[in-house]
Amino acid sequence: MTKKIAFVSSRSPDAEEALSVLTEKYESVDPSEADVIVALGGDGYMLEAIHRNLTRRLPIYGMNRGTVGFLLNSFDENDLLQRLENAHEAKLRPLHMRVTTSSGVQQEAWGFNEVSLLRQTRQAANIQVSIDGKVRIERLICDGCLVATPAGSTAYNLSAHGPILPIGSGVLALTPISAFRPRRWQGAVLPQDAHIHLTVLDHFKRPVSAVADAHEIRDVAEIEIRVDPDREVTLLFDPDHNLEERILNEQFIP
Amino acid sequence: MTKKIAFVSSRSPDAEEALSVLTEKYESVDPSEADVIVALGGDGYMLEAIHRNLTRRLPIYGMNRGTVGFLLNSFDENDLLQRLENAHEAKLRPLHMRVTTSSGVQQEAWGFNEVSLLRQTRQAANIQVSIDGKVRIERLICDGCLVATPAGSTAYNLSAHGPILPIGSGVLALTPISAFRPRRWQGAVLPQDAHIHLTVLDHFKRPVSAVADAHEIRDVAEIEIRVDPDREVTLLFDPDHNLEERILNEQFIP
Amino acid sequence: MTKKIAFVSSRSPDAEEALSVLTEKYESVDPSEADVIVALGGDGYMLEAIHRNLTRRLPIYGMNRGTVGFLLNSFDENDLLQRLENAHEAKLRPLHMRVTTSSGVQQEAWGFNEVSLLRQTRQAANIQVSIDGKVRIERLICDGCLVATPAGSTAYNLSAHGPILPIGSGVLALTPISAFRPRRWQGAVLPQDAHIHLTVLDHFKRPVSAVADAHEIRDVAEIEIRVDPDREVTLLFDPDHNLEERILNEQFIP
Amino acid sequence: MTKKIAFVSSRSPDAEEALSVLTEKYESVDPSEADVIVALGGDGYMLEAIHRNLTRRLPIYGMNRGTVGFLLNSFDENDLLQRLENAHEAKLRPLHMRVTTSSGVQQEAWGFNEVSLLRQTRQAANIQVSIDGKVRIERLICDGCLVATPAGSTAYNLSAHGPILPIGSGVLALTPISAFRPRRWQGAVLPQDAHIHLTVLDHFKRPVSAVADAHEIRDVAEIEIRVDPDREVTLLFDPDHNLEERILNEQFIP
Repeated sequence: MTKKIAFVSSRSPDAEEALSVLTEKYESVDPSEADVIVALGGDGYMLEAIHRNLTRRLPIYGMNRGTVGFLLNSFDENDLLQRLENAHEAKLRPLHMRVTTSSGVQQEAWGFNEVSLLRQTRQAANIQVSIDGKVRIERLICDGCLVATPAGSTAYNLSAHGPILPIGSGVLALTPISAFRPRRWQGAVLPQDAHIHLTVLDHFKRPVSAVADAHEIRDVAEIEIRVDPDREVTLLFDPDHNLEERILNEQFIP
Repeated sequence: MTKKIAFVSSRSPDAEEALSVLTEKYESVDPSEADVIVALGGDGYMLEAIHRNLTRRLPIYGMNRGTVGFLLNSFDENDLLQRLENAHEAKLRPLHMRVTTSSGVQQEAWGFNEVSLLRQTRQAANIQVSIDGKVRIERLICDGCLVATPAGSTAYNLSAHGPILPIGSGVLALTPISAFRPRRWQGAVLPQDAHIHLTVLDHFKRPVSAVADAHEIRDVAEIEIRVDPDREVTLLFDPDHNLEERILNEQFIP
Repeated sequence: MTKKIAFVSSRSPDAEEALSVLTEKYESVDPSEADVIVALGGDGYMLEAIHRNLTRRLPIYGMNRGTVGFLLNSFDENDLLQRLENAHEAKLRPLHMRVTTSSGVQQEAWGFNEVSLLRQTRQAANIQVSIDGKVRIERLICDGCLVATPAGSTAYNLSAHGPILPIGSGVLALTPISAFRPRRWQGAVLPQDAHIHLTVLDHFKRPVSAVADAHEIRDVAEIEIRVDPDREVTLLFDPDHNLEERILNEQFIP
Repeated sequence: MTKKIAFVSSRSPDAEEALSVLTEKYESVDPSEADVIVALGGDGYMLEAIHRNLTRRLPIYGMNRGTVGFLLNSFDENDLLQRLENAHEAKLRPLHMRVTTSSGVQQEAWGFNEVSLLRQTRQAANIQVSIDGKVRIERLICDGCLVATPAGSTAYNLSAHGPILPIGSGVLALTPISAFRPRRWQGAVLPQDAHIHLTVLDHFKRPVSAVADAHEIRDVAEIEIRVDPDREVTLLFDPDHNLEERILNEQFIP
């Protein structure tokens, strides 16, 4: 039996053209009736599609009509049904951040790649770092820091000099951005069940923003970060380019 | 003939107490009548004292009553006249930044340590980098970047994984903060007469702030950075701990 | 029932003195009759004791009478029986290396920390890197490279700029030493079941040696490295300083 | 008046073919009668040609018939006389190393790129580092270390995570290879007139070799390294790709 497909696309001309070609060639249904979502765009749009459909728990097959394309399959208008049939599943669970702002408001958001903090003004961020209830760094003076999943370890985390982590390694990277004190602190690799609690010290003088994937919260006072065991997304990949292979391959690009 | 001293201090209790002890023990004059300024505080205050007295061209002797103290001499209430007599001079020239903001306003500021750019929101900074009129990077995607002098190379630059530069090396460090593209770009060491021109691409969508030492300008569209040949400050150091020795020593701290 | 202890020590004066104190205070038996081995020395000796007793499969409790002491408990002549009773177990499996030398001889050895290759002369090592039968780097030009376990990730691997890996993360680090080509290659984190096959190219002109912990083999032509599923050592740690905690803690040392 | 050219080449087929084409097209003389040497090969051969002709003090123009080609001009059989006429000069002074071996023999050699030390066996190198007569590191435990000139800073030094140094910066890089202690020591940038004195501790147990460019000395006990003020080589570069521009450009390669 053929799967019912909901096609979605970013607003870029390339993605919209691909959308019109595919919806002419294959039947398209609304996401509420679909068995699978096919997302057309770049990595940024793919993350957006994942977030939009998180509660629907449908598998998502991305095709690259944008930039980078790490989470995406190559684009081809032909043989889509066969490719969906043969695709491998990769299950990703997001980081959950619970933020208390300087004004006392609580907010939450999810990040499949990372949750990051960055100073908002010229004042260096001063952050107390606790892991599983134990203070590990009393005062991290820095531009910011981030917590990355294995899937996100090749994104912002890599730019901030963090380590690439294989899918399935069961770890998270805690990576500083421009650490001033402790001098030359290079971050840590943590078990995936770690509870990370970051307190922004002097948060009125030294305001800091938090970002989970594309969702930003300004003026953070405290933030708790952990993998959310209750949310999960299923991505589909062509067998010869599954996510595990991509992340392994990423590490050998010259 | 004894030099006329203007004592200045930060507002920290330690620094203010040192000020009262020293002004009781030695004669103090207004900076407008002084031969030398003695500044009491930490590295942050020392930079502030340098900026405040930049046009007066008086030598500045700092004594450490604060944190870090890289630009400072050790504190001792005794033998000050003798120490001033024996001190070595280090001449520093600042970076000058000329900023054009998104609204078209032009502003300038000076930085003895560094001039830095950082994104203001979750949108990654996109910066075109030109050196001496030649575009070297079409689009640097990053959290930001900075240009550091040798004197500042052990400060923010070191935190951002930039190289330590000896005083007198005649070079500047151009160091990215979390470079995403070009992938793993590690920055460059430039001749000190380099003219660095940074253009913030998509600056309305991707706002970026600039900081020269402690002076911040928001919403930068373009920035030109070069060493200012016409401004110079003279710092005084005890002979056994002059700035050249300090920067050399800094590189061998375990 | 009290465990029968075999005390062993390095030849350093401190360790030998500790040995005589402890064997006077507690009964000591030959390793062949023991339930547990108590090793006295530094990290180097601890590795030696692990290798010597690998086939006996006895748990080993180390006490620090030497340098570093990462694999060791603190020394105290009192309460040893109680500490052994309360100790937590950490199970480690070594890397196995199977080497073919330039003269065609096959040799094998085991490394709990790492297996490493290094050039023997001024000629740069040229190494082909295969993972699970797939060539990942045709020609790695370098001083050498190493494969580290999580337990060894804070040792040689860290010196060579490799990532710290948590115990239980199920990964290995493949880390180059002074990689010349591919330019700036930073190594890879691999699944723990990876089969790593390194071929030394031009091995007569460019001789390379291999080391597994302290065992060295010269003039390597080929080397296969993987975790040995059939060998395992049980280390004992005081509960407040178990190996997992140590490696986590190691990452937050300023 | 036309310059008299001595053509020399490496033994690679490409270089030898270029030699025969050029010596047919242009008159070739013996180096002893030449005004300029034209060297055909890769970077390795270029260094060899520099060393061979060091005492002749002739300018050398290299053309790339090998790999990398950082010190070389692009190959073209035409317009050679014009290119020699227009070429810019870059003057390089080598590092001089004076080695005392374990057996007490003294040897010396010169390196335009770098002087490096590396352990010969599995025993880590233990090196005492002195700069200008002052001990800066009592015991550097490592695979080795190197001192690089600006011209050599993009070669071995870069592979060992050292900084790129601009021509004319008047500095040297002292860069460790896999530093174990001091933990995470990243090396130092030194004034070009620095006298570097390295003592190999426990040199019988822990043998170390020294290499200056391609010249290797085994079993080093002590080594003194400094820029030799009395030796100088003149390299010729096409104006649009002079050495300064190359090193600047090298830093912006993605």
